[in-house]
Amino acid sequence: MRVLGIDPGLTRCGLGVVEGSLGRPLALVDVSVVRTSAQLGVPERLVTIEKGIDARLDEYAPDAVAIERIFARSDVSTIMGTAQAAGIAMVCAARRGLPVALHTPSEVKAAVSGNGRADKAQVGAMVTRILRLDAMPKPADAADALALAITHIWRGGSQARIDAALAAAGRTQSMRGKGS
Amino acid sequence: MRVLGIDPGLTRCGLGVVEGSLGRPLALVDVSVVRTSAQLGVPERLVTIEKGIDARLDEYAPDAVAIERIFARSDVSTIMGTAQAAGIAMVCAARRGLPVALHTPSEVKAAVSGNGRADKAQVGAMVTRILRLDAMPKPADAADALALAITHIWRGGSQARIDAALAAAGRTQSMRGKGS
Repeated sequence: MRVLGIDPGLTRCGLGVVEGSLGRPLALVDVSVVRTSAQLGVPERLVTIEKGIDARLDEYAPDAVAIERIFARSDVSTIMGTAQAAGIAMVCAARRGLPVALHTPSEVKAAVSGNGRADKAQVGAMVTRILRLDAMPKPADAADALALAITHIWRGGSQARIDAALAAAGRTQSMRGKGS
Repeated sequence: MRVLGIDPGLTRCGLGVVEGSLGRPLALVDVSVVRTSAQLGVPERLVTIEKGIDARLDEYAPDAVAIERIFARSDVSTIMGTAQAAGIAMVCAARRGLPVALHTPSEVKAAVSGNGRADKAQVGAMVTRILRLDAMPKPADAADALALAITHIWRGGSQARIDAALAAAGRTQSMRGKGS
């Protein structure tokens, strides 16, 4: 499966496309950052972000979009712009009928590094290793977007396997129930 | 001038179109509320809001869009959805090159009622009077959207006159400066 990970932000919005499946090596497809100038008004900045996301969706046709879940308790000075950028990202995906998943920063850190409190450098280092890159993606927003896409493939994959196992167990049990 | 006022919200998004200019009676063009079900995911709800706003922009072709300014200190439980709905509204307007203005709730209350701390009922009553309506627009989101549009016409108008006066004064002064 191919996933577009989005680290939303008004000044820098990280966009990372990763392809692969659980248990197989993952591959980097593309990584970029949409930047908007604080000289522009918020409406124009949001339109620039929308165009950037739409361009990646057009070019890479992902199967799903994973966006960082924003909390109202985050840094108040930037929370509004971040929430709005995340909202635009959701709309861009939903307009195309793509599934949207939100992952919290600690879910992403835990998925890629095994530690929900890992710092930016640790996340960047693990993304570099997982995708077998020559250098750490920069800025941090780029690495975070890739980490979101990796998290989605790994969590989605394991969740799908758990669901399948539970469904199979349910079938077996009901068959047993029937037989006994 | 014709203004679309938007009272953003994920559950109810008020949309009011008002036409007129400062010093002349204002007229109601249209008022409606886009509602989205909490049963749906946020991405789908935001797309419904986007479609509702785009439909009004298509139908009424306003000259400007006035949106309530959201503060991060507002009610935390609904602030994210409200901020995102406001972001979508900004994008819908900016994509068409329409000017977007944000007005705070107290600016709107002060503009329509003369009291920045007016309650919902007072704002609704003044909107009804200003637009010479038979009944108060309901729900409150509808009245608030109309109040935003009224505020924009009145504030925009007076601001434009002040700017023109200052520009004229500046010109006169520099001409005098030149002459002396």
